[in-house]
Amino acid sequence: MNAVNRQFKLIARPAGAVKRSDFEFASSPVRDPAEGEVVIQLLYASLDPAMRGWMNDGRESYMPPVALGEVMRAIAVGRVIASKNAQFAVGDHVTGLLGLQDYAYSNGQGLNKIDPKLAPLPMYLGALGMPGLTAYFGLLDIGQPKAGETVVVSGAAGAVGALVGQIAKIKGARVVGIAGGADKVRYLVEELGFDAAIDYKKDDVAAALKTHCPNGVDVYFDNVGGDILDAVLLNLALHARIVICGAISQYNNTQAVKGPANYLSLLVKRATMKGLMVGDYYPRAMEAIKDMGSWIATGKLKTREDVVDGLENFPEAFQKLFSGQNNGKLVLKIA
Amino acid sequence: MNAVNRQFKLIARPAGAVKRSDFEFASSPVRDPAEGEVVIQLLYASLDPAMRGWMNDGRESYMPPVALGEVMRAIAVGRVIASKNAQFAVGDHVTGLLGLQDYAYSNGQGLNKIDPKLAPLPMYLGALGMPGLTAYFGLLDIGQPKAGETVVVSGAAGAVGALVGQIAKIKGARVVGIAGGADKVRYLVEELGFDAAIDYKKDDVAAALKTHCPNGVDVYFDNVGGDILDAVLLNLALHARIVICGAISQYNNTQAVKGPANYLSLLVKRATMKGLMVGDYYPRAMEAIKDMGSWIATGKLKTREDVVDGLENFPEAFQKLFSGQNNGKLVLKIA
Repeated sequence: MNAVNRQFKLIARPAGAVKRSDFEFASSPVRDPAEGEVVIQLLYASLDPAMRGWMNDGRESYMPPVALGEVMRAIAVGRVIASKNAQFAVGDHVTGLLGLQDYAYSNGQGLNKIDPKLAPLPMYLGALGMPGLTAYFGLLDIGQPKAGETVVVSGAAGAVGALVGQIAKIKGARVVGIAGGADKVRYLVEELGFDAAIDYKKDDVAAALKTHCPNGVDVYFDNVGGDILDAVLLNLALHARIVICGAISQYNNTQAVKGPANYLSLLVKRATMKGLMVGDYYPRAMEAIKDMGSWIATGKLKTREDVVDGLENFPEAFQKLFSGQNNGKLVLKIA
Repeated sequence: MNAVNRQFKLIARPAGAVKRSDFEFASSPVRDPAEGEVVIQLLYASLDPAMRGWMNDGRESYMPPVALGEVMRAIAVGRVIASKNAQFAVGDHVTGLLGLQDYAYSNGQGLNKIDPKLAPLPMYLGALGMPGLTAYFGLLDIGQPKAGETVVVSGAAGAVGALVGQIAKIKGARVVGIAGGADKVRYLVEELGFDAAIDYKKDDVAAALKTHCPNGVDVYFDNVGGDILDAVLLNLALHARIVICGAISQYNNTQAVKGPANYLSLLVKRATMKGLMVGDYYPRAMEAIKDMGSWIATGKLKTREDVVDGLENFPEAFQKLFSGQNNGKLVLKIA
């Protein structure tokens, strides 16, 4: 092959926000597949908050950290361009942990075929991918909202949050989103049909929750942690369920994570806080994909992708997740 | 009647630790019962960490705060000395929220008869009372330990903690207690049969947990909050259950409560943190009393009461809960 493979290799553990100098943007020729391997040309890579955690060393987590010198881990979709693996043919579209690079080699483990005729490719990184499963199982399996209950979601205009709110509406709940900025608030209420939305950059979140959730919060799907989690803890309904999905407000901390000071509300309200790890639900993925696909097809579920063009723009594009500048599922277009 | 009723009335919201000057120790004559009322002479009053919360104004809780000028709320046992209520006869022994005073009036609501022949009176304030129900239902209903799992309990030598550990042993779990001081550690292991105990005043709790819980903590029953909760969060097993029963390390805080900075372990370990309110289980009290009574009778469950003599000593006696000087269930002997 004559192609050149550009790769973002992690070369430093970021302190706080990710910088371009935390990576080496290297180039190498693309080689032929070894026996049992396929070569995949990446088309889109997913940029997810969890990637920030993968860059850290230290404490035990659900996955080992990316080693220094290793290609940065990322979920992506691509097309098989060479195959010595009977399971995959040239031209197949696939998704998996392919990394931030132009070309990936795979022995087929963890690689799943997708059909580009059924849905646009970036959707396989969003509603029909990891964020979709996260929203679907986190809300329905852990949050378990009942019709008429009040569901609050933070990071509500993000890839996971926007799906959580819409699924909760489909299930008959009242939905209040928390997001940053007037545009996102308008999008949630006017386009996605949320019952209300709170602008955490402008509003007093605890007071706004009291207004919009007069009977308290039955289910809180937390993507952000920090002060917003504390504000929701002040507004729980009896027997509330809190789904801990992430804590994007804390991922760039160079100091210790801020724990939820109001956690004793769990006691007063007999409430539950439970952690969500989407990987646990991969065996049940088809349940979600079937429902989500049908809701998308019938217009009940809207998706939005924020596509940034060019692998080379990864470090700056990734920062949009933390500044809140992304509008919908953030995806890097590679080819 | 010629008797004099001494009463501790709350006259100031304590800042930090309770001081004698936060109370008025008043005296008044005891009057005859009104129609439907009984007059009760108090024999023992229970001193519980929850009482510190009842002294605070402010945030919504599971019970209104004690109003300024009101007799300090406390659970007690006593004897009916005059009755104009057909449900209760003179000489009956009763328990309820009778307050810190020599004599209480009651219309019978929330008043339960107890049998002094079946168990010593202070035990109705401990293993057969509120602490017993807290330990029994908190551990079995929320914690749900399975045989062979590892259960950790903090405040392990306290009224609730000592019962939690012993019930967990009866159910076949490995039990590690966290308490303050060599005497308590020895008591837990040598007298109560805990598998191990950690002295938080001397040991590095996180490191000691790693040693004593090589497969991680399956159930953590938290009575203390603060740094110890954070240390346990670093040592959870997959699918761990944390029972939030109290946070005695935080009750005298004049600053904000310290939230658990390591709460994102809930996510990594797919763990659950749930609040316990014993009042929810009062309708099922007999389940616990039957089991606990039989375990006590057969020597499987040991109880210990720390009896301080004299109603007048309440403010200083109460402080023993926070300095950790009490040995077992702290009870004030009134008559």
